[in-house]
Amino acid sequence: MKDIEIFGNIEKGNDFIKKTQNKKFVFSFVTSYTHTCEIPGITVAGANPDLLKFTSAADAEFLHYGYCKSIDTIPMTPDGKPTPAILTKVALEAASIPSFVINAGSKIPPKLPYLELGLEPGKNIAQEPALDHDLTRKAVEHGRIIGRSLGSSTDCLVIGESIPGGTTTALGVLRGFGLQASVSSSMPQNPVDLKNQIVETALKRLQSRDPYDIVTQLGDPMIPSVAGMLSTASESTKVILAGGTQMAAVLAFAKHVGFNENNVAIGTTSYIIDDKTANLVEIVRQISDIPVFAIKLKLGESKITGLCSYAKGFVKEGAGAGGASIACLLKTGLDAEKLLSLTENEYRRITSQ
Amino acid sequence: MKDIEIFGNIEKGNDFIKKTQNKKFVFSFVTSYTHTCEIPGITVAGANPDLLKFTSAADAEFLHYGYCKSIDTIPMTPDGKPTPAILTKVALEAASIPSFVINAGSKIPPKLPYLELGLEPGKNIAQEPALDHDLTRKAVEHGRIIGRSLGSSTDCLVIGESIPGGTTTALGVLRGFGLQASVSSSMPQNPVDLKNQIVETALKRLQSRDPYDIVTQLGDPMIPSVAGMLSTASESTKVILAGGTQMAAVLAFAKHVGFNENNVAIGTTSYIIDDKTANLVEIVRQISDIPVFAIKLKLGESKITGLCSYAKGFVKEGAGAGGASIACLLKTGLDAEKLLSLTENEYRRITSQ
Repeated sequence: MKDIEIFGNIEKGNDFIKKTQNKKFVFSFVTSYTHTCEIPGITVAGANPDLLKFTSAADAEFLHYGYCKSIDTIPMTPDGKPTPAILTKVALEAASIPSFVINAGSKIPPKLPYLELGLEPGKNIAQEPALDHDLTRKAVEHGRIIGRSLGSSTDCLVIGESIPGGTTTALGVLRGFGLQASVSSSMPQNPVDLKNQIVETALKRLQSRDPYDIVTQLGDPMIPSVAGMLSTASESTKVILAGGTQMAAVLAFAKHVGFNENNVAIGTTSYIIDDKTANLVEIVRQISDIPVFAIKLKLGESKITGLCSYAKGFVKEGAGAGGASIACLLKTGLDAEKLLSLTENEYRRITSQ
Repeated sequence: MKDIEIFGNIEKGNDFIKKTQNKKFVFSFVTSYTHTCEIPGITVAGANPDLLKFTSAADAEFLHYGYCKSIDTIPMTPDGKPTPAILTKVALEAASIPSFVINAGSKIPPKLPYLELGLEPGKNIAQEPALDHDLTRKAVEHGRIIGRSLGSSTDCLVIGESIPGGTTTALGVLRGFGLQASVSSSMPQNPVDLKNQIVETALKRLQSRDPYDIVTQLGDPMIPSVAGMLSTASESTKVILAGGTQMAAVLAFAKHVGFNENNVAIGTTSYIIDDKTANLVEIVRQISDIPVFAIKLKLGESKITGLCSYAKGFVKEGAGAGGASIACLLKTGLDAEKLLSLTENEYRRITSQ
């Protein structure tokens, strides 16, 4: 399909596209928090460290209202690079895809209705276990409940996330599972050394290869919640895990929780695939024989510097932007050019407020 | 259709049935609380006054798990009359209808994932206004948000509720709107005088005929929340308001919030229609030209005394039992006899635990 490249299992990818074109989609947006994000230099999400705890709530509010309620600006770097939620919002609106916010351990819940999973924020994995066993099991169990409900009322469930610092915990989980992983970053100079150092410290606490231990020690609340959702939703419908390395970490854990490999794809932006410091397709191949969709957004062609920067290695993905854009194209038949033009309009709207 | 009687607008009722047979349904279960229920003698929901605050959480947990987590029993009167949630559970399971719990101001949230509306329990209308204006508006706004999301992913949204003391606040709202209403009760000796006395006291505070004032003074958090849900969901899909007089109160308020009359029906049990102390069909006719479905459950034919009592004026309805049973018949083509047999099995399961 135009503007969507398939990696991984190409045959399953083509079949997935055929079965979801012009069908019904539901987008779920999992907001969460890990104290790992407070380590200086780890993330660009939230221009100001004090604002980190508002990042995922602000993204959820922006997706829904077109403005934020918990903070008085739209999440954007000081030089005008907007949150990837702008791409998600444009895609969902263009395709009239309904969405649900899922609170999986956020520090600040969003100011709109959300599905409450009853979890706590994750701890800083450089210092202590991310979760405790009961919390990990509860995240999976509650994820399974809502995955079943959301999955049984749509043809394709798209699952995106927002958790500042989440690529570091994802790296931790992938390494915990013994995978040769390097991960993407929201910054062009990926702080690889810092991430590796944090993960190495955390790995020293790992006493077993039990999947629940790995997530409990090295993960965050988002990972077991989405694994649970994937597990039940994929029994009855197609699922797009919308994201990069974080969704690979979900997949690594979900393999042990159980899911239907014939109903699952990863959906992300081509900027993640192009990232030389990461190896998403290779990581996924080590875990599961599923397709990876990459949407070729044309942000590099934009005259708006803040959007163009995505093609230059900034932000790249997040808030389910890639998966939501793919869902939009599948449902409506629009192309990336049209999405760009809608995104530019939206950018102008928010910067002129 | 067999076992479903239509009152109100018969033509619209037949059309509604035709358009939803064998289609997809989603059940939403709105849990809430009003301190009005703490007035002695007002409700049988919760055999023990101290347990009233757990009633709706317990119903939600029972619907999902088949047992309760917040309390260590299944809600049932000391002499074995079970919560109407038993009928809801059987109907939803028999038809594989997915469900969502919506927390609209419960005192105790259920121990499972739920949609959080961010409201407070309602106050005792005999003493003070039920809500404040901001809360009423928030309930409508947040109801509208989830009604849109839930409605756009199904062919028919069924909305049930659980709020102890809710028939009294419903009576208050109906009277506030100037309707000639008398309401049902979970007890065969409907405490009509007590309810009227409470409502008369509350009506004295009412300074205007503004719909928001009426709900704020006399209502509860469930009423504006469900009115908001109805408003947006009915734009895109069919909606069954599952309940008796409480859903009539929702309808009276929703008329001012706005909804699509061609997509809405009330769904209840024939025991409510048979209730000589109430006048549901007549109240609905005063509000809106829509159909009222009544399912003729065959509980009176049961050899189980606790179930048989429903046909003798006890409990009669609640937890969306009537609407869920109607949805089950519409989706699957099963009949009331089959539902009775499944309900008897379920009753035996819970009483043998």
